[in-house]
Amino acid sequence: MNPMPLEFWFDFASNYSYLSVMRVEQTAARLGVIVQWRPFLLGPIFKSFGWSTSPFVLQPWKSDYVWRDMARQCRKYGLPWTRPTTFPRSSLLPARVALVGADKPWMGEYCRRVMQLNFAADRNIDSAAALSEVLAQLGLAAQDIVAEAQGAANKLRLRDQTELARTKGVFGAPTFFVGEEMFWGNDRLDDALGCASA
Amino acid sequence: MNPMPLEFWFDFASNYSYLSVMRVEQTAARLGVIVQWRPFLLGPIFKSFGWSTSPFVLQPWKSDYVWRDMARQCRKYGLPWTRPTTFPRSSLLPARVALVGADKPWMGEYCRRVMQLNFAADRNIDSAAALSEVLAQLGLAAQDIVAEAQGAANKLRLRDQTELARTKGVFGAPTFFVGEEMFWGNDRLDDALGCASA
Repeated sequence: MNPMPLEFWFDFASNYSYLSVMRVEQTAARLGVIVQWRPFLLGPIFKSFGWSTSPFVLQPWKSDYVWRDMARQCRKYGLPWTRPTTFPRSSLLPARVALVGADKPWMGEYCRRVMQLNFAADRNIDSAAALSEVLAQLGLAAQDIVAEAQGAANKLRLRDQTELARTKGVFGAPTFFVGEEMFWGNDRLDDALGCASA
Repeated sequence: MNPMPLEFWFDFASNYSYLSVMRVEQTAARLGVIVQWRPFLLGPIFKSFGWSTSPFVLQPWKSDYVWRDMARQCRKYGLPWTRPTTFPRSSLLPARVALVGADKPWMGEYCRRVMQLNFAADRNIDSAAALSEVLAQLGLAAQDIVAEAQGAANKLRLRDQTELARTKGVFGAPTFFVGEEMFWGNDRLDDALGCASA
């Protein structure tokens, strides 16, 4: 009766992370599970495998399917969807801002809005202007937050967080942890929450 | 109210195909959906991508996860599970026999038993002896069926079927088609059935 927290590792560039970002807070709340947001960058992890970019780009036989699947999944979950004209989009600054916000009450709404910029509005997300707009919409001190996000200490934190993902065995996103149990992919969100609340 | 059939493409070597083989007939029947069994070989498709074997072998960072995931998925579905000591197992003869049986009433039970040899009993499945045992347990003329499976015409049929999978865009298993709509992975079986019966 005392649910474990759900560690939620995600990258704003990742289309399947979009599905989980939109669903996780509401679904977890229904089960009394606390979400621990863990923004990170997939790029350095893919590079450690010798991959220059997303496997959806490197494996062209898979990419048509992935976009068709995304359209169907978004319809299933009632989410807006536009296939991004640039994929994967650089997600460095949004990840840095998310690291500043990870324990703040605005984190969920910030993440959902940035994801919708990328996967519904088809807009560049790696820009101080775009992110300031999102933060200001949430009534926050956008300039201060972006400045903190771009500070040396926070840049190092994101590098450390990404390295921690790698050492924990993360190889894609979204990835969930419940204690030591790792779950990969939006398709495992419900199993992970079931494990957390069992 | 007139469900479309579900084309079910699978390989006896594929662990995620195991989950679908065990579930598909019962789940489809509940919705009045007819299963069209499409055994094929993943090996030639992987080779066309320049891969010498399963991506779960070529990407060692993923394989530990896959086996953990399989154990959890089998528990969820109430299926027996033993991590195979050889992976991927050669599945040539079982696929040839399955092609002979694809439209026969014994197909489902044959496939489930072969899959359980591989993923529950940890036994070699590419052997006339093992398959004859399965067929005999089903009360079938094992010798005749194995002989037909190994005939020149049937060997060619399996090559054609695998080539058809490739031209349809199949890149992994299990894969489902409902008309032109392709669904990849055991995680999409329910969506595919929903599409077939919509």
